[in-house]
Amino acid sequence: MNYKMICRTLGNIVTLEGALMLLPAVCALCYAEWKVALVFLCAAASASLAGFAVSRLFHKCDRTIYAREGFVIVGLAWILMSLAGAVPLVLCGDIPSPVDAFFETVSGLTTTGASILTDVTALSHGGAFWRSFTHWIGGMGVLVLMMAILSDSTGRSIHIMRAEMPGPVVDKIVPRVKDTAKILYLMYIGLTLTEVVFLLFGGMSLYEALIHSFGTAGTGGFGIRPDSIGSYSPYIQWVITVFMLLFGVNFNLYYLLLLRRFRSALRSEELHIYLCIVLVVTGVMAWNIRGVMGSAGESLRHAAFQVASIVTTTGYSSADFNLWPGLSRTLIFILLFVGGCAGSTAGGLKISRVAILFKCARREFRKLLHPRSVATVRFEGKPLDEATQTGVMRYFALYSLLLAAVILLLGGEPFDLETNVTAAISCFNNVGPGLSAVGPMGGYADYSPFAKLILSAAMLFGRLEIYPLILTFSPLTWRRK
Amino acid sequence: MNYKMICRTLGNIVTLEGALMLLPAVCALCYAEWKVALVFLCAAASASLAGFAVSRLFHKCDRTIYAREGFVIVGLAWILMSLAGAVPLVLCGDIPSPVDAFFETVSGLTTTGASILTDVTALSHGGAFWRSFTHWIGGMGVLVLMMAILSDSTGRSIHIMRAEMPGPVVDKIVPRVKDTAKILYLMYIGLTLTEVVFLLFGGMSLYEALIHSFGTAGTGGFGIRPDSIGSYSPYIQWVITVFMLLFGVNFNLYYLLLLRRFRSALRSEELHIYLCIVLVVTGVMAWNIRGVMGSAGESLRHAAFQVASIVTTTGYSSADFNLWPGLSRTLIFILLFVGGCAGSTAGGLKISRVAILFKCARREFRKLLHPRSVATVRFEGKPLDEATQTGVMRYFALYSLLLAAVILLLGGEPFDLETNVTAAISCFNNVGPGLSAVGPMGGYADYSPFAKLILSAAMLFGRLEIYPLILTFSPLTWRRK
Repeated sequence: MNYKMICRTLGNIVTLEGALMLLPAVCALCYAEWKVALVFLCAAASASLAGFAVSRLFHKCDRTIYAREGFVIVGLAWILMSLAGAVPLVLCGDIPSPVDAFFETVSGLTTTGASILTDVTALSHGGAFWRSFTHWIGGMGVLVLMMAILSDSTGRSIHIMRAEMPGPVVDKIVPRVKDTAKILYLMYIGLTLTEVVFLLFGGMSLYEALIHSFGTAGTGGFGIRPDSIGSYSPYIQWVITVFMLLFGVNFNLYYLLLLRRFRSALRSEELHIYLCIVLVVTGVMAWNIRGVMGSAGESLRHAAFQVASIVTTTGYSSADFNLWPGLSRTLIFILLFVGGCAGSTAGGLKISRVAILFKCARREFRKLLHPRSVATVRFEGKPLDEATQTGVMRYFALYSLLLAAVILLLGGEPFDLETNVTAAISCFNNVGPGLSAVGPMGGYADYSPFAKLILSAAMLFGRLEIYPLILTFSPLTWRRK
Repeated sequence: MNYKMICRTLGNIVTLEGALMLLPAVCALCYAEWKVALVFLCAAASASLAGFAVSRLFHKCDRTIYAREGFVIVGLAWILMSLAGAVPLVLCGDIPSPVDAFFETVSGLTTTGASILTDVTALSHGGAFWRSFTHWIGGMGVLVLMMAILSDSTGRSIHIMRAEMPGPVVDKIVPRVKDTAKILYLMYIGLTLTEVVFLLFGGMSLYEALIHSFGTAGTGGFGIRPDSIGSYSPYIQWVITVFMLLFGVNFNLYYLLLLRRFRSALRSEELHIYLCIVLVVTGVMAWNIRGVMGSAGESLRHAAFQVASIVTTTGYSSADFNLWPGLSRTLIFILLFVGGCAGSTAGGLKISRVAILFKCARREFRKLLHPRSVATVRFEGKPLDEATQTGVMRYFALYSLLLAAVILLLGGEPFDLETNVTAAISCFNNVGPGLSAVGPMGGYADYSPFAKLILSAAMLFGRLEIYPLILTFSPLTWRRK
């Protein structure tokens, strides 16, 4: 195990987080929140200094890392960042309880959007900005950002990228990892700024536009109004719907579009399934809620918004879907698992995994009928190798077992089963709201500190797709060869 | 496809079912229910005659069958038996609605125990006897019974046995299939009669003792009192607890015990996990419900009863666990999935599958750390071959997708999500009761006919472990080579 390189990278990460804290400080200054600005400036300074010192201390080190260092770096980096990110929220008085602030920061970084706040309007502008900005940081991945910025990343960084990026298969879109990271972040920034412009056009202030663009881009879901997006204009709701869907698409496809390889981009099987699910479920839901809503247009708008929000695991709401008819609530319950495309900022199982699971299951039929036949599973036009298939199935098994464990650990909380189960599913899949008491108008405030820590762990497990965190704490990883 | 052999076997099955209907006829005669006795006698006669005619018609046929014939025979036999078994319940007036009678018969044969009856005491003795007797028939499998009785089964019958017996791997316990089937049924009858004696000793009438022994042996759960087993004496509750647990054990182990190979029987890894789960969950639940119950002894009795009932997918209840604290309800919710041991009469995923899933998932850790390492998965002291591992994982993927589909199809029913979700899970895993409106004191009466058919399908899918039914209706199976 290359301890020095691990410490060095963690140092860099904390430095980077410190630098990013300057933005909420600037925001607080703009709104004349002097105390908040001071807290964020001090936090930024101390994080940067401490991180820089550690990074310098281990500057001279062997930069060779393997898969296990990749997992450990990602696992520890996310825990460290969540801890460091919670400090200013506690100190500025926005979220005085450390456990609550940790939960909220984890929820932000993992782009979950589950909140312990009972009154979101009581937040300072600086605090709310930081809270939403963590969505943006966590969406594409902070280690990917580090690779894009720092010049010293080697070809070995692919191990870190693989551990942080979601999806069954992670590939570089260009040969060098650093360039891949740069391209990803440039596209991410480009799309985010486009959304800001569209939102400004709809009459939002720059502050509001930034907050909601961060929330959409990271597929997070933190807002600044008690009813989420409910009280904004239909135009704004449609803009956010479209951008949620855009951020749920694999970013590799945008790169193909930039290269003008339109045909290969639009041929993506995962994209087709994704759009199919969105269209069909929106249609069914719009029809199902026509009685609750005023007009057909309104039904369609709210259905499209909710489907986009849940399938991309954003978690914004345009209406209280907790009060919708049973079929719509059931659809939302099932969608909580699915998630967006691999290689997007969305959480969940990912469309490609669900599709591969379906195809693997279907393959068993042929195998049972003709035991000696060679049946291949094809995805994205190519035959899937055995390792990817079993990898996806093992991931799903682990995912299910962990989900059961989380549900079990919430069992002692004083809520009904629907609340606990959907809270666990929603946090694990980085969606945010669940149903019943954790529905769009509810929240996680009344959970015990123990449950909040369990749910924080669930969010981290979900965002990092389980392995990095388990391997970080597994004796197997730390054993000498 | 060997159509003649399929028809011949189906004919035999219906004949056998007709013969089995003589028992409820006798029961009805004992209680002087003339109309009911007449209905069951007529049903027995017509089923036997029709079945026998078909069987004779195709008597001269090539008896060679392959895997696909095995699946089709099992799939069609179970549907046919459910239809035929429902007829006397409709005609004798116990369950006038055909859809309800079909649901109840499927629930009986699949040993689920979910009921559409609102007043179980209104049933005739003959009808109630048949209803419970279907549990006993379905528990070990009716095709296995046919193999044990008929002399003409060939070595090829293993394909039928594999398709009907639950569990990831099905093996003959002795070289000949017919002998295996015979041994299984003799042990099954022996254990059932032992329970009858124990129940008679507790003061039950022979009728009651038979009804409850059938329900326990098949791990079904139909009773004849509105509160299930709640109003019986503690002695009877303990007897049923013990026998539920006994019928949840792999019958191969009993055969090893009969052969006096105690050590190999008690070394079973699946048995250890099974007992471990039962003990730990009973302990936690007894502690959790101590406030609801009068004394520590009572808490322990009810907790043990409920855990045994749910883990073996029987579905009897000694108390209304719907009113128990959240932790206990959560434990029951998770246990709904697990099921008993492979090769027992219990439903669910089966302990061995859950254990293999866990081990496969854990294996991925090692694979991620050392991509070129050869990591084997061991179960029951032997390394598991790759095919069994992927088979279990593919089954789990299919299981999850189907479960999601069932939940979705129930979405339109006027119940809360907890009811629909636990109804789907409970029926799919052949447990019986769920939570909320389908809890131990509730039932499936208020579901629409459409939902009842969906849940019937779910029960059949669960009992036959998915493949036989899907393959029966798949064009892939019927295509010429």
